[in-house]
Amino acid sequence: MADELNIPIPSVKRLPSYLRILRQAKENGEKNISATKLALELGLKPIQVRKDLASTGIEGRPKVGFVIDELIMSITHVLGWDNATDALIIGAGNMGSALAAYDGFSAYGLRIVAIFDKDPGKIGRSVGNLEILPVDTIYQYIKSHRVTIAVIAVPANQAQATADMLVKCGIRGIWNFAPKNLRVPEDVVLQRTDLAASFAVLSVKLGRKYCEETEGEVIESDING
Amino acid sequence: MADELNIPIPSVKRLPSYLRILRQAKENGEKNISATKLALELGLKPIQVRKDLASTGIEGRPKVGFVIDELIMSITHVLGWDNATDALIIGAGNMGSALAAYDGFSAYGLRIVAIFDKDPGKIGRSVGNLEILPVDTIYQYIKSHRVTIAVIAVPANQAQATADMLVKCGIRGIWNFAPKNLRVPEDVVLQRTDLAASFAVLSVKLGRKYCEETEGEVIESDING
Repeated sequence: MADELNIPIPSVKRLPSYLRILRQAKENGEKNISATKLALELGLKPIQVRKDLASTGIEGRPKVGFVIDELIMSITHVLGWDNATDALIIGAGNMGSALAAYDGFSAYGLRIVAIFDKDPGKIGRSVGNLEILPVDTIYQYIKSHRVTIAVIAVPANQAQATADMLVKCGIRGIWNFAPKNLRVPEDVVLQRTDLAASFAVLSVKLGRKYCEETEGEVIESDING
Repeated sequence: MADELNIPIPSVKRLPSYLRILRQAKENGEKNISATKLALELGLKPIQVRKDLASTGIEGRPKVGFVIDELIMSITHVLGWDNATDALIIGAGNMGSALAAYDGFSAYGLRIVAIFDKDPGKIGRSVGNLEILPVDTIYQYIKSHRVTIAVIAVPANQAQATADMLVKCGIRGIWNFAPKNLRVPEDVVLQRTDLAASFAVLSVKLGRKYCEETEGEVIESDING
């Protein structure tokens, strides 16, 4: 875990991308990989790659580069992804159902174990392999299954009440997909995925590119999502 | 549009959050709002709010604060959201279907007008109000409907080929949800939403909070998503 290391957040955000490429290379039978190759794949500068990877405690060797297995293990460990983490989803609307059925989470050690909704019409239906459970059984569920992470995918006007309820149930990490800024106690970690913010950046960059033809500014892709 | 102003990207990312609160306040019949109130709602410092909003060309007045209507108009204009932008989605899997059915986009002027897939088994089925179209009709569609933005929601190994195809069809802005770093020509704007990067930050912050109890560091919620 990241207890001995204090990796900057921008580097943390890039680690999953390295992991993806390393796993792909491993599948292709490769044993070693150079910082240059990683940089090329990700559109980064080699020096950035070396810095990011050094922060996980691994350094490349001249001519050989990085040992892929070593690097995969180190990154997985830094991210705390070596053991799968159980999480539950609150809200079985479009977004919640999509997240429940999304098969990409398992690759980074996140296991969605349950999904809850308050709509009686949805209870008992299936999303992916999960049955939608009534939200008033959530306390019981969290206590008996010792889940510590919850994904909020309810409408904006229910998001704060949902967060408050989750905190009372003992949840320590909240991943918020609702379009709402939430307040949680200091000992709870809150991460937000704000689709509107991403689209705002795309809109403004497009506007700049096609309205400021004179400036000729190169707009880079945003690897940090 | 953002042609006269050069607003920093972190400010751009916060603009949709201001917009959300301003619209809510307007619905509640309010006419004016203070930077302090906006700051409180979003968990920001008032000085940050004033700076962000000044960058859109609007300044508050002493005692009165900001005129809500004025601010909504200004932010919407800066983001280029005063006219709805048409976009299409490539990939009708879990993620693509969720995005197609997601009702939150319209609030920020993004209108999903079509969804495409290459799987014959999916063609003709409905997602939300849209019928899934065959991907080999996409060139025709883009040309006749003059769409400039595309959302990529295909598996990682098809993402680069999809981006190349979209660029050839004349798409100028790509919003990539596939877990893959894409390369596009300089005149195309690429924005990535990387769920793995978000979860990495949550994981590492959780690890730091519960493994470094000694440090007592306050971990702030990430408003930038």
